[in-house]
Amino acid sequence: MSEVTSQIAHYVVRTSLEQIPLDVRKEARRALINFIGCTLGGADHEAMEIVLAALGPVSGNGAALALGRIEPINPLLAALLNGVSSHVHDYDDTTPNNYIHATSPVASALFSYSSVNNVTGAEFELAFILGFEVMSRVGSAMYPSHYDAGWHSTGTMGTIGAAVGIGKLLKLSPLQMTRAIGLAATQSAGLREMFGSMAKSFHPGRSAQSGYIAALLSKEGFTTGMQGLEGARGLMAVQSVKADFSTITDALGDEFALRGNTYKPFPCGLVIHPIIDACIQLRERYLINPVNIGAVRLMVAPLVRDLCDKRNITTGLEGKFSAYHAAAIGLSCGKAGLNEFTDAIVNDTQISSLRKRVEAIADNSIPESCVKVEVDMIDGQRYFMALDHAIGDLTRPLSDAQLEAKFREQAGSLSVKQVDELIKSCWEIEHEYNMGRLVRLTIPQT
Amino acid sequence: MSEVTSQIAHYVVRTSLEQIPLDVRKEARRALINFIGCTLGGADHEAMEIVLAALGPVSGNGAALALGRIEPINPLLAALLNGVSSHVHDYDDTTPNNYIHATSPVASALFSYSSVNNVTGAEFELAFILGFEVMSRVGSAMYPSHYDAGWHSTGTMGTIGAAVGIGKLLKLSPLQMTRAIGLAATQSAGLREMFGSMAKSFHPGRSAQSGYIAALLSKEGFTTGMQGLEGARGLMAVQSVKADFSTITDALGDEFALRGNTYKPFPCGLVIHPIIDACIQLRERYLINPVNIGAVRLMVAPLVRDLCDKRNITTGLEGKFSAYHAAAIGLSCGKAGLNEFTDAIVNDTQISSLRKRVEAIADNSIPESCVKVEVDMIDGQRYFMALDHAIGDLTRPLSDAQLEAKFREQAGSLSVKQVDELIKSCWEIEHEYNMGRLVRLTIPQT
Repeated sequence: MSEVTSQIAHYVVRTSLEQIPLDVRKEARRALINFIGCTLGGADHEAMEIVLAALGPVSGNGAALALGRIEPINPLLAALLNGVSSHVHDYDDTTPNNYIHATSPVASALFSYSSVNNVTGAEFELAFILGFEVMSRVGSAMYPSHYDAGWHSTGTMGTIGAAVGIGKLLKLSPLQMTRAIGLAATQSAGLREMFGSMAKSFHPGRSAQSGYIAALLSKEGFTTGMQGLEGARGLMAVQSVKADFSTITDALGDEFALRGNTYKPFPCGLVIHPIIDACIQLRERYLINPVNIGAVRLMVAPLVRDLCDKRNITTGLEGKFSAYHAAAIGLSCGKAGLNEFTDAIVNDTQISSLRKRVEAIADNSIPESCVKVEVDMIDGQRYFMALDHAIGDLTRPLSDAQLEAKFREQAGSLSVKQVDELIKSCWEIEHEYNMGRLVRLTIPQT
Repeated sequence: MSEVTSQIAHYVVRTSLEQIPLDVRKEARRALINFIGCTLGGADHEAMEIVLAALGPVSGNGAALALGRIEPINPLLAALLNGVSSHVHDYDDTTPNNYIHATSPVASALFSYSSVNNVTGAEFELAFILGFEVMSRVGSAMYPSHYDAGWHSTGTMGTIGAAVGIGKLLKLSPLQMTRAIGLAATQSAGLREMFGSMAKSFHPGRSAQSGYIAALLSKEGFTTGMQGLEGARGLMAVQSVKADFSTITDALGDEFALRGNTYKPFPCGLVIHPIIDACIQLRERYLINPVNIGAVRLMVAPLVRDLCDKRNITTGLEGKFSAYHAAAIGLSCGKAGLNEFTDAIVNDTQISSLRKRVEAIADNSIPESCVKVEVDMIDGQRYFMALDHAIGDLTRPLSDAQLEAKFREQAGSLSVKQVDELIKSCWEIEHEYNMGRLVRLTIPQT
């Protein structure tokens, strides 16, 4: 197992769409519908305007388009912007077994590339599935120690997924693909310290760019170390205590990470979804009036405290990583859409006051998919709920119809005709002759 | 010491050129002369042509210039190219106390910026000194564990140095500077697995770009975590077992890393300089004919084996990290310039044959600045030398005249008039009204 990078590169190069099981291809389409919806939901976010204002002037011109944006720009900037828009609301898909958001960096690079090159739907679908797969395998081989150390794996592993995806479209040779993965590995970055700020969404954007660059450089003959993943000074040894090579190479072509992909019903950190779901259910079941709540106790998995312990918050982005905010909006609003994670809601007096009454207790006996919630009312009444799985979990996945509804919720700036055509084109992606057409369909008609 | 990032940001923002000691300013000029020379020496390297071919088409247009190159390009690409050209021959300066090449990423970004913005020599000098300083301090605070883990600190720390330098030119506020450092930290990357390939020189280039981007984004209001360096999931905790905050903040404004900067007489890894120096001296002293050598034994510091154990090599870039090649060219050629690290020399029969007769033995009692060399001749004669410090070491620094000679050696494509003017302008940098003029002076007149 000494040639992991080369082995995975050979797999990517030789694999054709016919070798991908139909259920995996179906899941890829669900992921792409969800992805495009999220990019549309984030396309006008302040973070996007800042990136364009800051980097537009140093990025030259170009004919590429970011999804949902009208400005013609260079493809590297488009890849970055797609990453930001798709991830900035923390509404994109994730695989709960390693907390990686693989779609964001991979699809961000692929859609940018497709906006300026002729790519068929079938080519895109295959490149996406392979990028997602390799990124997930490398991430799982290092999980949880890599993540526990403080790495944001969506950023770190994203370089690899994007390099594999773009490399597949560029028809790299096995040697070139090995080097592209190496060049991606050596750009792997992203710190969890940035959670709750715009910089979190910068991670998949920058990694989409890094992977894109890696594939282009390798295609032209740029040389690298040949063991970017498994070498003594390679990605896995350097960034993780755990480095399980067999996770990368076992059952290649038989098992697919997309089968473990989930789609978020709430635009925030995955580990607080059970809290939101339970609080919404409690509110409905007991007709709770939030002003009469005395105290709320959340018994949560330790990772929830580790990731989402933000208590004194002032921005919507911070709210996405606050177990306290999750409970407050669930109990106060009875829902948790984009509107419940705005700066205004976070600073709302009633919500803010309720957050202060919420306590989160880490309990090793509680798995990450579960939560126990106790609500003490001022009048002495106590309500309780134990939730095993939140909606959106692999055991309670969003249906195709729910995914379409989520797409429509975020695509408000597009015409109904555009939305219908986009959704239809994703479901029938293997018949699409030019993915650039889909990119142009995401641009609001003014 | 809980606000290290903020503290260092405040220091950078409030510091003026008048507060920099004159000896430090003198060393900055030496560093810049050496840097420009190295970019000229590397400007036509194959790695540069590959980067331009691969990334030119996706980088839009621009009015920026990479040093020594005629193509107008966008500033981010120019920053990347400067990093590659300055580092690709491994001929650039370094601080032996942490093996960081700080000049490369910092000056790469600053010269790119200066090619399209009005920057005076005084502004440039200050930004360079501060970028070099902060980068070195953070690197030293994590050295050696960060480097030992497999990180290429020139790449990882380079993002910080470039962000600080560009941020100073952009006149960032303390808050903006704190965020710029955070955005730099979260892009920190570069694996030692890439040593001996083009990807090593890609590291300072990419980090120059990353720091440049970080400063621009922060200027426009992009938000980040506020403890990019010292946070629980910040750069230092994530990338190093050792994280000595006081190294970053102690004696700020009094002690300067530039005082520990050294300039290479040989274009290869620093730790094999003693081998080359000793072998050249042995050859001269005993009139050694390399074909009559039976065996060569090198007693070296363990790090030499760790870094430069490349035995079966086929490229000049690999030769730069081969203790065996170092001994072979020292004994065979009696010198070690750019010509001794070409693919042709590495594959030369006589050199290759001699490499096979060299043995390197790690010895814990030997410091990294030293080497012991034993040469057994076929006729039974044995020669020995123990060297304490190689030329170029802090105790035997290159003189100003030697630095100028090194510059001229690498500036063959420029006219004598251009070379003279460039050297003069660096020595008198505080009188330069526009650093863009220096950039244009590096372009060959065709």
